[in-house]
Formats: sequence, C-alpha cells, structure tokens
Amino acid sequence: MQNLIIERIVALRKEMEAAGVKAVILPRTDAHLSEYISSHWHIVRYLSGFTGSAGTMVVTDKAALLWVDSRYFLQGAQQIEGTGIELMKDGLPDTPSIVEYLCEHLSKGDKVGINGLLMSIDETAALRSRLNACGIELDVDFDPIDRIWADRPALPADKIFIHDEKYAGESAKSKIARILSAANAQGAKAYFTSALDEIAWLLNIRSNDVPCNPVATSFLYLAPEGSTLFVDEAKMTPEVEAYLKEAGVGVAPYNEVLATLAALPADMTVLLSGSRASGAIAHVLEGRYVKGESPVALPKAVKNDIQIAGIRQAHLRDGVAMVRSLMEIEKTVEAGEPLTEIGVADILLRHRSKGELYFDLSFESICGFGPHGAIVHYSATPESDVPVIKGNLLLIDSGANYLDGTTDITRTIALGEPTADMRHDFTLVMKGHIAIATAIYPEGTRGAQLDALARMPLWKEGKSYLHGTGHGVGHFLNVHEGPQSIRLNDTLAPLTPGMLTSNEPGVYLTDRYGIRCENLVLTIPYEETEFGKFYAFETITLCPFDRKLFDTSIMSDAEVEWVNNYHRTVYDRLAPLMTEDERAWLATATAPLSV
Amino acid sequence: MQNLIIERIVALRKEMEAAGVKAVILPRTDAHLSEYISSHWHIVRYLSGFTGSAGTMVVTDKAALLWVDSRYFLQGAQQIEGTGIELMKDGLPDTPSIVEYLCEHLSKGDKVGINGLLMSIDETAALRSRLNACGIELDVDFDPIDRIWADRPALPADKIFIHDEKYAGESAKSKIARILSAANAQGAKAYFTSALDEIAWLLNIRSNDVPCNPVATSFLYLAPEGSTLFVDEAKMTPEVEAYLKEAGVGVAPYNEVLATLAALPADMTVLLSGSRASGAIAHVLEGRYVKGESPVALPKAVKNDIQIAGIRQAHLRDGVAMVRSLMEIEKTVEAGEPLTEIGVADILLRHRSKGELYFDLSFESICGFGPHGAIVHYSATPESDVPVIKGNLLLIDSGANYLDGTTDITRTIALGEPTADMRHDFTLVMKGHIAIATAIYPEGTRGAQLDALARMPLWKEGKSYLHGTGHGVGHFLNVHEGPQSIRLNDTLAPLTPGMLTSNEPGVYLTDRYGIRCENLVLTIPYEETEFGKFYAFETITLCPFDRKLFDTSIMSDAEVEWVNNYHRTVYDRLAPLMTEDERAWLATATAPLSV
Repeated sequence: MQNLIIERIVALRKEMEAAGVKAVILPRTDAHLSEYISSHWHIVRYLSGFTGSAGTMVVTDKAALLWVDSRYFLQGAQQIEGTGIELMKDGLPDTPSIVEYLCEHLSKGDKVGINGLLMSIDETAALRSRLNACGIELDVDFDPIDRIWADRPALPADKIFIHDEKYAGESAKSKIARILSAANAQGAKAYFTSALDEIAWLLNIRSNDVPCNPVATSFLYLAPEGSTLFVDEAKMTPEVEAYLKEAGVGVAPYNEVLATLAALPADMTVLLSGSRASGAIAHVLEGRYVKGESPVALPKAVKNDIQIAGIRQAHLRDGVAMVRSLMEIEKTVEAGEPLTEIGVADILLRHRSKGELYFDLSFESICGFGPHGAIVHYSATPESDVPVIKGNLLLIDSGANYLDGTTDITRTIALGEPTADMRHDFTLVMKGHIAIATAIYPEGTRGAQLDALARMPLWKEGKSYLHGTGHGVGHFLNVHEGPQSIRLNDTLAPLTPGMLTSNEPGVYLTDRYGIRCENLVLTIPYEETEFGKFYAFETITLCPFDRKLFDTSIMSDAEVEWVNNYHRTVYDRLAPLMTEDERAWLATATAPLSV
Repeated sequence: MQNLIIERIVALRKEMEAAGVKAVILPRTDAHLSEYISSHWHIVRYLSGFTGSAGTMVVTDKAALLWVDSRYFLQGAQQIEGTGIELMKDGLPDTPSIVEYLCEHLSKGDKVGINGLLMSIDETAALRSRLNACGIELDVDFDPIDRIWADRPALPADKIFIHDEKYAGESAKSKIARILSAANAQGAKAYFTSALDEIAWLLNIRSNDVPCNPVATSFLYLAPEGSTLFVDEAKMTPEVEAYLKEAGVGVAPYNEVLATLAALPADMTVLLSGSRASGAIAHVLEGRYVKGESPVALPKAVKNDIQIAGIRQAHLRDGVAMVRSLMEIEKTVEAGEPLTEIGVADILLRHRSKGELYFDLSFESICGFGPHGAIVHYSATPESDVPVIKGNLLLIDSGANYLDGTTDITRTIALGEPTADMRHDFTLVMKGHIAIATAIYPEGTRGAQLDALARMPLWKEGKSYLHGTGHGVGHFLNVHEGPQSIRLNDTLAPLTPGMLTSNEPGVYLTDRYGIRCENLVLTIPYEETEFGKFYAFETITLCPFDRKLFDTSIMSDAEVEWVNNYHRTVYDRLAPLMTEDERAWLATATAPLSV
C-alpha cells in the first residue's frame, strides 16, 4: 500500500509540473461540499490511505502533508506511516496553518492549485487573499484527479425516488415558491444550490448516493422562468422526470452545470450561499450573483406539522428497536455469551431494520466499550473490535433514517455493577442533559447561550467535553444540519419552534470510559408574557437511561422528578408496542429512581 | 424648552441645506468615542432635550428622530414631547435601523453628513457601505455644531495629575513598552489612541474632564522614536510635563492631532483599533495604518496584584459607606421622616465622600423608588423626584472612584413589609446572581456563554431583563470597560484571571417596581485538571442583601448556603471598621436566612 501511495503522489506531481502548479490543496469533500461523501470523491483516501472523516492534504513539489484535527492524530499517523506523508496536527500551537506553511515553503510568484468545486466561496476568497498577501497565486481550475486515478469510482448511479408529500408535508412547488421569494428579498432573481440536503428537501426527492445520507448527487438552479436539476441520466426514471416537470423543474446533464451557469444572461442575479456554494460556481457567475445566506437553511430546519407528526412516529419505532437492543445486549452479557462492539452494532441494525418505513442507518453506529467509549469518534473496525463484557460502560450512539423521520440517540449503559466514579460522572452528564431539556428561553435565543447549562455540572468538578452539546437534525435526511446548534462557539441562528436539535453532553476519561447521553429535542412555544415569547424543548427520543448509573445523592428533587417523568412517558408510549416480556423489562428499566 | 429645540433644529437644517446634506447623524459621544462625555459634546441633548446616556439623533430635511434602546423608551418619549422629534424604539421588530430609515426616506444621490470624529472606523465603513448600497453618499466632514451652538461649553480645562505607581502597580514606561511590542505583533510600528481611558491607564495620568470619569481629554501617539500626548496647554502642569518627558512622551496642542498624523512619513504604520479609533483618524492616516485590536484593552482589563489589593481595600471602604447609608435610609423611613430619591443619593454621597482615597462617584447614583425602579437607567431629577416611604422597593445602583479602585454596587431593599410577589421576584434575581457567582469555567470561556445562567430562573417564569448581566470595571477609571462582558450578544474576549466584572441580573415590572442585585466579581484561577485550566469568580463587593426579600422556599440548600456564607464574609470584613451601633445593625442584616 505504501508504495502505491508513493506512486500516486509521483503521478500527481507530474500533473502539477505540467500545469505549472507548485502545490495543490486537496480538501476531503465533494463538489457539493458534503460532510459525508461517495467513493468517487475519496481523493484524500486514494492519495494518502487516510480514512478519517475530516482532513486536508497538501502536496508540493517537495513534500506531501496531511492536516487533521485532534480526533485523528493517532489514526492519521498510523494510516500514513511509510508513505513519506507528514502529519500536521491542526490546532496545536506549533502547527502552521496550510497558508502559513505554503507562504514559508513556496516562493513569490509560485502558483497553488485547487479544484474550485471543493471549496466554498468564502473559503476560496480567504485562501486567495492570504496567499496573495505573501505573493502566491491561486489557480482554482486545477483538477488532475481523473487523469491519475485510473479506476476512479463513477458518480453514484442509484435511482432517484420521490419523498411522498404525506411525509414531507409540503410540495416541491410550494417550497420553490417560498425559496425564490426569499432569494428575492436578498436582491436576487434566482437561487443556485449544490448542497445535496438542500436539493433533497426542496424537491422532495431522495436517493442513496452517500452512505447514511439519502441524497441525490445533483445541482439545482431555481428561477421563476424555469428551474433545472443537473443530474446524471442514470439516476433518473420517467416517473421522477414527470414529477419534476410538474413542479416546474427541467433536467440537464450533471456535467453541464458550469457551462449553463456561465451562459446565463448578463442581467441575471443568482443568490449563492457564501459557505455552501463553491468558489467555482461564483467564478462562472462572475458579476451575476449576490452572496448571501442560504434561503433554504431555516425553512428546512423548521419542521412542519406533518414532519413533526412523522418524527414522533419514527421515534416510537426507534425507541422500540432501542429497547429490544438494550434487552438483548443485557441478556447476552448477563449470560456470559460472546459479544463484541461490532456485534452490538449488528443487534441495533437488526432491530431497527425491522421497523416500518425504515430506510437506512442515519450514521454508522458508534459502539465503544470501556476505553473505546472515551474516543469521541470511535468506530469499531475488525482490528479494533473488543469483547463487550461485565465491568465497564458501553457507549452506544446510533440512529436511523425512516421515511417519516431521522433519529439520533446515545445511551451509556453499565455492564455489571458500575463503580461510584461511573455513577458520579454519569449523573454529572445527566444533570447537564436535564438542564438543557428543561430550559425555557425567550424568542431570539441562540444555542450557544444555552450551551454552558449542559457543561456547568462538569465544569464545577474540573471536567469538560470538547464537542458540541447539540446539532440540528434533518427529516429523512442528513443527521447533521444547520443553521442552529448548541455549542461553545456562537452561531447566529436562533432556536425557533419546529427545530429539532440533539441534546448530548458527555464526558470522556482517557483509557477508562466515555459517557454521553443524547436525546433529540424539539423547540416548541411555551408561553407569551409581557416580556415576550418564550420557548421550551420537548424531548422526542423515547428510551430509558440506565437507572443503575444515577447517583441521586447529587441530584436535586427536580432533576430526579424529570428522570421519573421522562421514564413514565417512555413506558406509556412504548409499552403498547411491545410483547409482554419486553413490557416487563421496560417497566423495571423505567421504575422511579430510588432516592 | 420645546420652542428652543425647534429653533435649534431649524438652524441645523439651514447648515445642512448650505452644505448640500439631506440628513445628519448625530451620535451621543465625543471625539474619543466615550460613553460619558463632557458638556462640550452634549450635542444630542442640546438638539433634543434628551438627557439619557445612549441614543442617536437623525435630522433630515423633513424629520427629526431619536433612536434609543429599551432603557430609554419611557424617558426618551417624555423628554422629547412637544418638540416634533419622533422616538425610534431600537430593538423592536417594527423599528427600522437608521440606515433602513435613510434608505427609505432619502433619494438616490442624496448625501448624509456626519462628524467623522464621532464614529469608529468600523461603524463608519459599515455605514458607508450600507448607504452606498442604496445609492446614498456619506460625507464624514460635516460638523456645523460650533456655528449653531453659540454658547457651546469649551473643552474641559482641569489640570492633569499623576496616578501614583503605588496604586497603578506598573510604570507608564513599562506599559508603553508592552503596548508597542503588542502593536509590533500586529504588524505596526506605532500605536495611536483617542480612547481617554486607554490614555489614562497607559500614562498613569488622570484628570476630571468627564463627570465620574477621571480622564484627561487628549490623544496619544506612541512610537519607538518618541511619543506625543495631544492635549490643551491649560490642562498641563510643569510637574506632569516633566513626568511625561521622563516616560518618553512629548506634549503638543490638542487641535494639532489630525495635522500631525497627516504629516507622518509614508512608510509609517500605525495600529488603530477598528472599534475605538474614529473614522476621521483612519482618513488622515490613509495608507499608513493597520486596523486591528486595541493592544491596550486586555492589559488594562487584567488587573495586576497591586491593583487587586487596592480594589479590595476600596471595597472595604465602599462597603462601610453602603452599610451606613442603608442604615440611615432604613431609620429615616422607619421614623416617618421625609426622604426622597435625591435625598437617598445625597446620603450615599455623604458617606462615600468621607472614605479615605475617595475621588468622585464612578457614575451618577440611580435611586429608583417603586415604579421608578422599573425604569432601568432612571436618574432622579427635581421634576421626577418622589418621596421614599414604606410600601415598595427601593433600587440603589451607585459606586465611587477611589485612588485605589472603582466600585459599582446595586442593592434593592424593601421599605416596610414586602409582598409575596416582591420576595418571589427578588429571589429569582438572586438565584441568577448566585449562579454567576458560583460558576466555574474553563480557560477561554466568554461571558456570553455564562449569561443564560443568570437569566434562566426568570426565563422559566416568562420574565427577563434586556440589559447585560455584567460589564468590565476599570481601576480608578471608567466604571464600564471592555473587552469582557457577560451579555446576550457574544463578545470574543474570554474571561481571564485579573478581570473585574459586574454580576447584575434584574427584573423590571412596569409601574410596580424594579429589582437588581449587583456585586463585582474577580476572575481567579480555580483548578487545573487533565481537562485544562478552570477559573472561578471571587465576589469582591461587601454589603448585605436585604434578608426580608428572600423566599427560601424556592431556593436550593446550596443557594441559601451561598447567601449565608457571603453575609458572614461581609460581617467579618466590615465589622472591624464600624461603630458598635453599626456592628449591631450589620449583625442583624447578615444573620443566616430562616428556612
């Protein structure tokens, strides 16, 4: 493998030399700036062997480097060993940024190449201005990958299907009208998006292009005089084509998008999102675009009543699957039968996939036993897989896409009798979880304002976690979506009724165990007073927390009451869907905490 | 008065017409962008009659308008009544911004005028770009005030004096060296500041130019080859001139600042703060400045050990004065003797001014009885003054500048027996106050992350307050300083050990009463764990809260314990400084809460 990697980099350098490019930047994304990508776009993996979900590769005439964040310091180093690629540990004080590195190692007048489709407008502009500041040029039209990657996988060819309005709750026509009017308000006549979740939501279409992301690889141009979906013919069916036509959307080949945009009339103004549209798109639209906020982000995040009803239904099914999985895991471990982390993921998949309207997982299940639970983005591989046995905690973060909703839930359970430390740490995390679940907040409140509520019980004991407390969740769509979030860094989008957000504080003790407790919460109206409108979170996820792990001596009465009420709701909603055996297990699992 | 105002606006419109200016924007600040300003700069007051501490006036050829925030909705409306000026309630959904208003009411090609000294570089640039977007020009050189304000007060002429290093804890020379090195790190050779608190801190000089702000009206240019203080001759003494010379700082006339900067060599680079330097300064330095962060803000906010020791001492004296004032107010009201809001302010002043090292109040005392307490920035005038009697709450927000520190404290006391509502609301506010006082937070935490802790008890009952929870406090300097704050909107400066910040949640019930509870808190190191460094707040202010107002039935044990511990500390520190009578009163006032 190492030799293959070395040969591929040599081939890339030949292309660079031919194009007069001294360095190339290769972000790990696709032409749609996706977080999860199809195999066609795994360029960084092809050129480095690194399989992580985030990282940027840089190849110069003399060096090859891979920038990764702290999640991938270990894995990155292991996977590039022997290839001559240098690991650059992003975020450490001594690690230069990519621009700093290039400014130091290139000369004035040198050219850096990127594929302009793989970087947002804002990132491209920032990169160009910083490189220019040290005399380096940026060429956004350097894309030699097809020439050096002989057996490069084709773009996904799965058929597109229609996401029925009985689940989506709003027709594509109505959404298009809303979005064009919002684009108008930002001073544009048309809207262009390459974001796959935006296109899926806008047109009520889905496909199977990216593992766990039911999206269809395409570009979408919306305009009052007629809209166009740029998509591979292979993905189309006569039914979908007729459906799109009815919604006012024609179809054109995927590869014609840049040429078509370039040929738009001079007086056209197209709205582009600075963070979600590529620099290459802005480049071909030069003088005919306004950069603004995505008009889709907010309407997509605010679920309508039909979506919310579906989300509740999906969570009933997902709750049943979770309870069955927890029962099976518990029984297997109790009986001393063999079980590994991958086995746990298999159990979850088996129970979930039996659910009505089940489509796929919403992300690869994270099942981390003991010390593996402390690795935040751990995903068991055949090499890392360990037995799941008594004597430690098991962290399970998983979810599914159903036609009527997307789920994302984390439970941490004790196998055998937990230690006092485990119970103490679990309870600190739950205190934070409950603080979010019971928060009331005025109109206009941003998630970042609430974030510390989840962290304070940990902070008071010198503990913390570095990931966000909450992310937006799509509807039969990507499990991570904006614009809202609950995190340390501010995000400007306020929490608005109809938004579905995760509530997932945690704590990670290296080499010991990890704890995370995650439910999805829906922002709902709470009350209106002389001080204005106030909102609350309604917890949507239905599955018991492990009663063995609560230390009620450090909980307030209100916190104990919240857990008991939540458990009562879980029982009341799930019990009617279960067998007698399962009901008995659930009754015990949701019994009031002993104080 | 109304007629005078109308005449002044007519005079202004004549100047506008002569200069071809369709609208003028008049911010309530001075050429140093100060929050508190000397009488020379009270242009908004002169033209509108409005005396509030914040507001922006706009005069067009047809209309005159005053934008104020929620603190001044009531007072603003009252003070401009009959002048024809429209009140614009900033922050309400229906209120247009100034730019939105101008874009709607002016025509393409029209010109808006401002005095470029009265607006920061960033604000000027934003204003220009937004006005240009709707076809309106911005003229930053429109300053007709001298011509229409015949008896305009001169600039302050009080003498400058030296703030002894035994209080400041660091010499001017050392500070100048630190700041020039910080400017260097931002790519500049020199630093220019017009911010009066920065100049006072940097040079360890003070004066008496602005009520309650011991600053000296001046501009300061710092450069390795020699620094210059631009200041009126009248303000100088031979001693100060010699002292400045020793620190490497020459003196030049105040009015020569723009010409001197304009004449700097072409290869000079001066650091300017985008938020604290005026657009007019950037204009004359065109091509010879870098816009960056003020290098003074952070070092000034992080108090050194000598300053902190002084601050503790100042708070002992201030606590004694507060206790004596509260005793006297209580006795007077109990005895049924006449007392008004202004009388309360007089009592505070009398006791404070007897304190060692007392210099001045740090802001005009706010004494609001009953409904007046609900007007957030109420300041009693002879017209508004009311008797202070039994049957309602009295809100007292006051503070002083001592040579060794600045204080800012708010207490809300019940005169007579408080109602259940009063006790309930007071306790909600105190729950928020205690949540901030007991917060622990990791290195890097910004105040905005903690803000919701103070508000949540109110939010849970559909109540809120719109002002910030906390602001930075200077050292024998301005009572409001950055860069840190605890507020709804994010500020990027993390809370750092040595920063002094207020902790002042409140709640305001229109026509009934207002409640605010304010102590100053010092950020201190708390512990270092495998998760990093954690900080805490140490409460510095020493004065009892009104025990009658606590409703312990809605407090946790930990909250009651915090109040009792705080009261014990107040007693222990203040009692040794008091007479026997006072000690007895204090002992009762600080006795444990009955649960």
